[in-house]
Amino acid sequence: MTLYVLDLVGVAVFAVSGALAAGRQRMDLFGVMVVATATAIGGGTIRDVVLGRQPLFWVADANYLYVILSAALLTMLYARLVRPPGVSLFVADAFGLGLFTYIGAEAASEAGAAPPVVVLMGVVTGVAGGILRDVLCNVVPLVLRREVYATAAIAGGVAYVVLDRLGAGDLALVLITAGLTTGLRLAAIRLDLNIPPVTPKEDGSTTRNPGD
Amino acid sequence: MTLYVLDLVGVAVFAVSGALAAGRQRMDLFGVMVVATATAIGGGTIRDVVLGRQPLFWVADANYLYVILSAALLTMLYARLVRPPGVSLFVADAFGLGLFTYIGAEAASEAGAAPPVVVLMGVVTGVAGGILRDVLCNVVPLVLRREVYATAAIAGGVAYVVLDRLGAGDLALVLITAGLTTGLRLAAIRLDLNIPPVTPKEDGSTTRNPGD
Amino acid sequence: MTLYVLDLVGVAVFAVSGALAAGRQRMDLFGVMVVATATAIGGGTIRDVVLGRQPLFWVADANYLYVILSAALLTMLYARLVRPPGVSLFVADAFGLGLFTYIGAEAASEAGAAPPVVVLMGVVTGVAGGILRDVLCNVVPLVLRREVYATAAIAGGVAYVVLDRLGAGDLALVLITAGLTTGLRLAAIRLDLNIPPVTPKEDGSTTRNPGD
Repeated sequence: MTLYVLDLVGVAVFAVSGALAAGRQRMDLFGVMVVATATAIGGGTIRDVVLGRQPLFWVADANYLYVILSAALLTMLYARLVRPPGVSLFVADAFGLGLFTYIGAEAASEAGAAPPVVVLMGVVTGVAGGILRDVLCNVVPLVLRREVYATAAIAGGVAYVVLDRLGAGDLALVLITAGLTTGLRLAAIRLDLNIPPVTPKEDGSTTRNPGD
Repeated sequence: MTLYVLDLVGVAVFAVSGALAAGRQRMDLFGVMVVATATAIGGGTIRDVVLGRQPLFWVADANYLYVILSAALLTMLYARLVRPPGVSLFVADAFGLGLFTYIGAEAASEAGAAPPVVVLMGVVTGVAGGILRDVLCNVVPLVLRREVYATAAIAGGVAYVVLDRLGAGDLALVLITAGLTTGLRLAAIRLDLNIPPVTPKEDGSTTRNPGD
Repeated sequence: MTLYVLDLVGVAVFAVSGALAAGRQRMDLFGVMVVATATAIGGGTIRDVVLGRQPLFWVADANYLYVILSAALLTMLYARLVRPPGVSLFVADAFGLGLFTYIGAEAASEAGAAPPVVVLMGVVTGVAGGILRDVLCNVVPLVLRREVYATAAIAGGVAYVVLDRLGAGDLALVLITAGLTTGLRLAAIRLDLNIPPVTPKEDGSTTRNPGD
């Protein structure tokens, strides 16, 4: 039940981030709907397909799509009336990232998966929708920019696995997993916090092609 | 049976659009085959995976792949002999969009899905192959340009749901769903018809990044 | 058993290629992990989802993820100490391509698929991880450049089907399928061997849009 409500909240938050991103690209009403939907259900769809859970959550329960439509419409109305701060997309994205990382890890754990699979399913559920949004909007995916992003989701997933082993209750699992992920991501945006890149001592040109 | 024939026709039409797009990128023979195949079966593969239909249509029945190979080869031969009008890619794409929107909506409806799921599966089946084609060809996806595209597929899906409720026969469902979608898309190409973009009153730079 | 070991080797090789590519993009430690993982299990995940094999190989057996983590970490350490030759990414990619083409064809053949499906599953398993890697790294996918790439995988897949019909043993199937694919790809890199592109006699602009 709690998982269901959190899932709806995560879906709404990512739908908002999808609608904001599509609106910035000056897409029409229906293009905005498509991007909001892909952002909101992309990660969960991959999670359920990978774990073999059928029927998919949004096929079995149309509430998900109604929540997405409402969230996208309200976002568009709001964006016409008020000027949302430029950072709103990143904040919505950070909350979606935290919630979905928890939900993905929880789903994999319930399915009896091993620790690294639990972490990976948290990361995939958290980041796939946002990658899809950015690819559809033709923007370099947030996850690839240098601020803490995959790092935040991995930290959340590892926290989930450790707490679960220690016998933590559901509330602690949600709050710490989602809170740590969202918190790290918001801190990275706020403090311009970056982990130093791995720089292999290799010839630097990134698109070099020996066949050229 | 009718659904099967229409599916083969849709697959052939999208294979032609994939081969035309790959040829424009000056890919070699086998690259063209790969793009034609991805375009033709991408949408249906996502549809079947989402709806849990196993085995996939093109795994169970090799005719789909034979149709794709034939369509791609004939397109390449034709393109060497005759100069296809520049608009041919967009026309083939519009017909594939209409047929696949119908087929996706029909498959979801048969699986007992709720109305918004039926519309969404129509859109996904219709647009996913073309998005895959454009990503593989490194072109900004047609669906993201400002002409009516997702809009046409959504209109077709909504028409399907309404007509199905009203008890329309199969022939009417096919003709109106596919006809409306393809017709809207062709009209948009012809008349340069665009729905005004949603422009949120937000700071305009599209790739701004608060961490920069 | 042999298939299992080869699969682990292919996964390790593609993890190395993912880590090298992500390192070139100056991603942080965890970004490198994510790209290495996507590259290593992307093709096999699509293969298993398409063939309806549940649970997925890397969900059922955590060794895959441990191999990926180790390979990515070792690659990063090595790249810090020694300057890998610029061509190392392409060589690792060629070996992964050959191994995964064999494994995909073998899996489809065991599932009783028809010849063109066997070839296609070889190609998909071989190329999908690399495409995912290049999209995540924002580089034009290797498969799209003009050297023999999809061509090598198709040749390997066709060789598999023919040899299987002729009753060849497992060892011959592995060596010839993977060897032919990797060999063709390495030869293409080495000799700058290209198949002439298909150039349709069409108006040349590649992103032309009749609605503009």
